[in-house]
Amino acid sequence: MVVVLKPNTKQEQIENLKAWLESMDIATHISQGLNHTIIGLVGDTSAVDMDLIRALDIVENVQRIQEPFKNANRKFHNQDLVVDVGGVKIGGGNFQIIAGPCSVESEEQVCYIAECVKKSGAGLLRGGAFKPRTSPYSFQGLQGDGLKLLLEAKEKTGLPIVSEIMNALHIPMFADVDVIQVGARNMQNFELLKELGKLQKPILLKRGLANTIDELLMSAEYIMAGGNENVILCERGIRTFETRTRNTLDLSAIPVLKKLTHLPIIVDPSHAMGYSHLVKPMAMAATVAGADGLMIEVHNNPAKALCDGPQSLTPEAFDDVAKQIFKLRPFACTYNED
Amino acid sequence: MVVVLKPNTKQEQIENLKAWLESMDIATHISQGLNHTIIGLVGDTSAVDMDLIRALDIVENVQRIQEPFKNANRKFHNQDLVVDVGGVKIGGGNFQIIAGPCSVESEEQVCYIAECVKKSGAGLLRGGAFKPRTSPYSFQGLQGDGLKLLLEAKEKTGLPIVSEIMNALHIPMFADVDVIQVGARNMQNFELLKELGKLQKPILLKRGLANTIDELLMSAEYIMAGGNENVILCERGIRTFETRTRNTLDLSAIPVLKKLTHLPIIVDPSHAMGYSHLVKPMAMAATVAGADGLMIEVHNNPAKALCDGPQSLTPEAFDDVAKQIFKLRPFACTYNED
Amino acid sequence: MVVVLKPNTKQEQIENLKAWLESMDIATHISQGLNHTIIGLVGDTSAVDMDLIRALDIVENVQRIQEPFKNANRKFHNQDLVVDVGGVKIGGGNFQIIAGPCSVESEEQVCYIAECVKKSGAGLLRGGAFKPRTSPYSFQGLQGDGLKLLLEAKEKTGLPIVSEIMNALHIPMFADVDVIQVGARNMQNFELLKELGKLQKPILLKRGLANTIDELLMSAEYIMAGGNENVILCERGIRTFETRTRNTLDLSAIPVLKKLTHLPIIVDPSHAMGYSHLVKPMAMAATVAGADGLMIEVHNNPAKALCDGPQSLTPEAFDDVAKQIFKLRPFACTYNED
Amino acid sequence: MVVVLKPNTKQEQIENLKAWLESMDIATHISQGLNHTIIGLVGDTSAVDMDLIRALDIVENVQRIQEPFKNANRKFHNQDLVVDVGGVKIGGGNFQIIAGPCSVESEEQVCYIAECVKKSGAGLLRGGAFKPRTSPYSFQGLQGDGLKLLLEAKEKTGLPIVSEIMNALHIPMFADVDVIQVGARNMQNFELLKELGKLQKPILLKRGLANTIDELLMSAEYIMAGGNENVILCERGIRTFETRTRNTLDLSAIPVLKKLTHLPIIVDPSHAMGYSHLVKPMAMAATVAGADGLMIEVHNNPAKALCDGPQSLTPEAFDDVAKQIFKLRPFACTYNED
Repeated sequence: MVVVLKPNTKQEQIENLKAWLESMDIATHISQGLNHTIIGLVGDTSAVDMDLIRALDIVENVQRIQEPFKNANRKFHNQDLVVDVGGVKIGGGNFQIIAGPCSVESEEQVCYIAECVKKSGAGLLRGGAFKPRTSPYSFQGLQGDGLKLLLEAKEKTGLPIVSEIMNALHIPMFADVDVIQVGARNMQNFELLKELGKLQKPILLKRGLANTIDELLMSAEYIMAGGNENVILCERGIRTFETRTRNTLDLSAIPVLKKLTHLPIIVDPSHAMGYSHLVKPMAMAATVAGADGLMIEVHNNPAKALCDGPQSLTPEAFDDVAKQIFKLRPFACTYNED
Repeated sequence: MVVVLKPNTKQEQIENLKAWLESMDIATHISQGLNHTIIGLVGDTSAVDMDLIRALDIVENVQRIQEPFKNANRKFHNQDLVVDVGGVKIGGGNFQIIAGPCSVESEEQVCYIAECVKKSGAGLLRGGAFKPRTSPYSFQGLQGDGLKLLLEAKEKTGLPIVSEIMNALHIPMFADVDVIQVGARNMQNFELLKELGKLQKPILLKRGLANTIDELLMSAEYIMAGGNENVILCERGIRTFETRTRNTLDLSAIPVLKKLTHLPIIVDPSHAMGYSHLVKPMAMAATVAGADGLMIEVHNNPAKALCDGPQSLTPEAFDDVAKQIFKLRPFACTYNED
Repeated sequence: MVVVLKPNTKQEQIENLKAWLESMDIATHISQGLNHTIIGLVGDTSAVDMDLIRALDIVENVQRIQEPFKNANRKFHNQDLVVDVGGVKIGGGNFQIIAGPCSVESEEQVCYIAECVKKSGAGLLRGGAFKPRTSPYSFQGLQGDGLKLLLEAKEKTGLPIVSEIMNALHIPMFADVDVIQVGARNMQNFELLKELGKLQKPILLKRGLANTIDELLMSAEYIMAGGNENVILCERGIRTFETRTRNTLDLSAIPVLKKLTHLPIIVDPSHAMGYSHLVKPMAMAATVAGADGLMIEVHNNPAKALCDGPQSLTPEAFDDVAKQIFKLRPFACTYNED
Repeated sequence: MVVVLKPNTKQEQIENLKAWLESMDIATHISQGLNHTIIGLVGDTSAVDMDLIRALDIVENVQRIQEPFKNANRKFHNQDLVVDVGGVKIGGGNFQIIAGPCSVESEEQVCYIAECVKKSGAGLLRGGAFKPRTSPYSFQGLQGDGLKLLLEAKEKTGLPIVSEIMNALHIPMFADVDVIQVGARNMQNFELLKELGKLQKPILLKRGLANTIDELLMSAEYIMAGGNENVILCERGIRTFETRTRNTLDLSAIPVLKKLTHLPIIVDPSHAMGYSHLVKPMAMAATVAGADGLMIEVHNNPAKALCDGPQSLTPEAFDDVAKQIFKLRPFACTYNED
C-alpha cells in the first residue's frame, strides 16, 4: 500500500501516522518527493482499512499495490484449481455445462430434464429448491422436497447436482448435494460464507448484481479463509442502465479473473439475459473467451408448452447450444500457459 | 397487469394463455385493438411472475399497474406509520437523529460518544457490534460483547439503541436491542427478513447498493408479510460510476417513497459519502427533503485523534450538524397532508 | 402506444386527452377494463413524447408497443444491410476487421501498421486524426495532416480508411475518407448526425458510454432520416461501477441489435477494455456472438517499444488475434436466417 | 503523478521509462521501496496520458496526485468566482433561480411565464429554442424564432436569458443571449467547448448523464483554457439503474465541487426528476446543500391545462417552491469561509 501525504504535512503528523501503522505490525518506508511525502506500507496489509486511511486529513490518496486476497490469489497459486465433483472436473482445462430447471417442480419434470441434458453433454444437473424471490408472495421453491427430487434425478442419471442455499441452517439438508451454490443476492452474506468455509464441499459463488470483481474474490476469500478451497466463481450479469436485457453480462470478467486467481470461472447467460433467445450467442461467447463452464437453464414448463416457440430454451434448444459449445471448445482462449 | 400480445397471435394461443392465467385465479379482460390484443389481469396479481409472461413468445410487453406490495403500500395505509421505540417516535411528523460510532470499541468510547450525541439532541444511539466487512481479514466487530457495551451505554444515557444483525441465529442476542438494523448487503437476504418478520421489534432496513426503490419496498414487504409492521426504511447511497464519493446518495428516494409507502424513511449520509466533510450538507439536504430521521456516524478513534482536523465528524462536528438540522426541521417538506 | 389511465379518471378528462391526441393525427382506441381505462394510440406515434403523456396527472403508465425508429427497423427491412466500402463489404454475412493506430503519428508509423494489419487480414485501416480528449492539454491529434497520412497509407495498401469526425465543419476534409466514425461522446451530438445524414458515405456510429441500445438506434435514425442509410453500429463498452476494465463491454448488444435492426454491428474491444491483454478474448467472444466486424487498435509506439511485453497488441499480437478470429468465423452465430 | 513499478522491473527498463518521460519535459524522482520502485513525476503532468502509462507492462499502478485541471482549480483561485450577468450575480454568496419553459412555444407563452417567474423572484429566464431530442421525429424547437421570442420576453421583463446551444455555427444567433447553455449530451462535444472558450459570455455547462465530476471540470477547463473564465457548472442527474426517477440527482456534487473549484454550481431538479411533484423537495435540498442557484422548468402547456393537477409545476406551483427556497437560503451550507 502506498500512502501519499498532502504537501505541508508536519513531521510530527507523519511520525504519529507511522507509529499508528507500526502498532498494527505494518512497517513503513518513507520517501520524500519534491512536494509530497510517500509512505510505503510493508507487510501484510490485507487487514488495513484503506478507507480509514484515505479519510485522514493529512492523506492525499492511498493506493493498494498488493491485492487484499491471498487464498484466491493466482500469485500464490500458479496452478489452476481443478474442482473435482465426484469425478466430474471443472477448471485447469476441464470444461463443464451445468444445466437444469430454474425451479424443481416435480419428479417427472426434473428427471426428464436431467436425462435430456445429460444426453446433450451436460456434466452436472442444476435445480432450484430454495428460491430467492423479490416478492414474498412468489413461489419460494419446493425447498427440502425439491432437494429430494434432485437427488432422485442424480440417482437416475448419475449427474452430480448443484443447488442454491439461502440459509446456513439448511446446510445439513445439503449433505448429499454435490455443489452448493451461493446466489448473487447472498454474495456478501458473510455469515453464510463463513459457514460454507467450514465444509469441504465445492461452492459455486455467483457475483452480486452490483459487485466488483475484487469483491467477488474477497467473498471467495471468506470461504477459503475458513479452510474450504473448492470455490467456483460465476459471472451472471451486473446491473446497469440498459433495459433490453435483465442484466449486463460482463464477459471480460473471464480474462480479468483468470489473471487474478487460479479458481475456475463459469458463466450463467440465462440469468444475465432473461430472454432465452439471447442465451446461445452469450454461451458461445463465454466459451471462446475461456470460461471453465456454463450454467444454463433448461425449461420444460406448462407456460412454455402453451406458447411454444423457436425462442424457448427447451431441451431441444439446449441440445443445439451444447453442440455449438463443444465445437467451439477447442478454439477457446487459454490462460496461465507459461 | 396489462399484457400486450403480438400482432398475429392466434385465437387458440390467446385461449391457452387465458386458461393458464385463470388456473392461477387471475381473471382476464380481453380488449381487441386495431393491431394488438390487450389482456387485462384482474385480481391479486402480486404473485404473478412478470418475467415469465414477458418471455412468452406471443407477448409483446407486460406492464404492472398495481404495485406488487400491499402491507407497505400507502394506498392501503393512508396514515403515516409512527414507529415507537420506547417512547422515542419516528415517522408521522416525528424526526430523530440516530448517532454513534461505526464500531463499538470499548465501554469508554461508546459511553462517551453516547453522552455527547445525546447532549446534541440525538434520539437514538447506533453502534456496530457485528460488522459486515468485505475482507475476512478485517475487524469483524466485538460481536456479543459489543452489544453488551451498547446496552451499558443505553442504561447510562437512556437512549434506545440500534445495531446491525447479520445472522438470524443471533436474534436472541438482540433481545434488548431496541431497533434491529438490516444492512445494505443483506437487504435481499430473504431468510433473514422472514425471521425478523416474526418479531415485533422495529426493523431498520437499509437499501442495497444496487437495489431499486421498488425492491426496497418488496424487502420491507417480506418483513411485514410475517406480521412485523414496524419497518423503518433507510436510504444510504447507491453504487454508480462516480468515484469522488463512496456511493451516490439518492435523496429523491425520500419523496418517491413518501408517495408509495406510509413507512418512515431515514437517510444515512455517513456511509453514502465516505468522507466526513460531506456529511453535513447531505444531512441538511435530507432534512429539508422531508426525511423522518438521519443516521450519522460519530467517530472518536485513535487514527482521527492522531491527525485530527476540521473535517472529522467528531462529537463537536456532530453537535454543529445537529444544530443546523434542528433549525431546518420547521422548513422541511411534508407529505400526505390531505 | 398504450396509455393506462388512473382509476376515477373522469369522462371529460378522457375526452380532452382524446381530442388533444387526435389534434396530433393520432387515432385512439379506448377500452374500458374493470378498474382502468386503456387508450390505444393508432398511427405514427414516433413523434409522440412519452414522457409528456406519462407526466399527465390522469395517466397511470404509458407503454410503447412500436419501436420509435423506422429506417433502422428490422421489421421494415427484412434483408441485412450490406455496407459496401469500395468493394469491401460489411454486414449480411460479410465480416471485416478494422485495425490501425489509435492516433496517426507519422507517415512511417501509419504505413508500417497499415501494411502489417493488411497482411494479417484486416479489411479496413483505422486511424485517429481528430482525437476527442478529456483534457484540453492532451494531444488533440494531427488533425488535417493526420488525414493526409491516412490517405497515403490507403494509397500504398489499398485499404479503405476509417477516421473519426468531431465537427461538421470538417466534413470537406473527410471527402476521401471511406468511412466516417462518430465517437461515443458525440453519439447524441444531433447537429453532427444531421449533417452526416446528408452524405452518402458510410457512417460508423459508436454507442455512447451511458446510452441504451434504443438510443443508439435513435441516433442511427437521425442519420438515416436525412437520407444516408449506410450506418454501421459499434458497441464499445458502457460505463459501470467496475474498475478492472475501462468500460464494460456489452456483447449482448449483438444479438439484441440483430433482432431490432438490419444494420451491421461491429465491436471495439480495444477501447472497451483499456488493456491490450483483454482484447483477444473479447474479440473472439464478439466474433462467435455474431458481430459483423471488429475494430482493433494496433500500437507501434515508443512507449510500448521501451517496455515491450507479451501483453502489448503489437502487429505480431494482432496477427495472432486475427488468426483466431478467422478460425472462429465459420462457427459464429447467424441471425435472420428465415 | 506517482507510478508504481512491478517487482522485478529491470534497471534498463526504468531508465528507458525515465528517458521517455523526460523527453516530455517531466522530471522524475525515483524512490526504491522494499519491493516496488516508485517514480514521482514532477512538473506539469496535466498532458500526461495516465492510461498509456498504466498500460505499460512494467507498471503496477499509476496515481494522479495533482488534479489535471488548472483554470477551474480552487487551489489556484481562492476566491469564489462571481459570474455577473448584466448585473445579476451568481456565485460567491449570490444565489439565483433560473426559470422558464422547457421549450419556447409562442410570444404569449414565454412572456406570460417570464412575468410570472420574475414576480416569484427568479433572476434569469430560461427557454429552449434549440432542443436536443432523442428522436429525429420529435419537435426540434423553434430555433432562431425561439431565440427572438426569448429576447422579447427579456425586453419586457428585464430578465437576462439562458438558452441552449447545440452547434458552434449558431453562435452568432446567440449574440444577445446572456448565458449560453451546453446541455448534458454535449458536455464532451469538445469542438463546441473550444468555440465557446473564445467568447466572453457566461457558459452554463451541464454535467453529462454518465460523466464524473472530474470530467465535468475537465470540460469546464476546455472553455477556460480558451480564455473564457465565466463558467457556471450544473448538476442535472446521472444515469443509474433506478427507474422511479428519470435520472438520479447527485446532490453530493455540490460539496464535492465546492472543494475542487471556485466556479459556481447550480442544480436542475426538473430534468433530473422528470416528474414535477419531485422538483420541490429536491430544489429545497439543493439549496441548503449550498448550491449557487437552481434551474427550474415552469410549464404552461395545453396538455397540462387539459389535465391540470396539484402535481404540475405551474407558475403557481413555482411560486410556492420559490418562496420555500428563499426562506431556506439563510440556512444554506457555505464553503471556502476561511
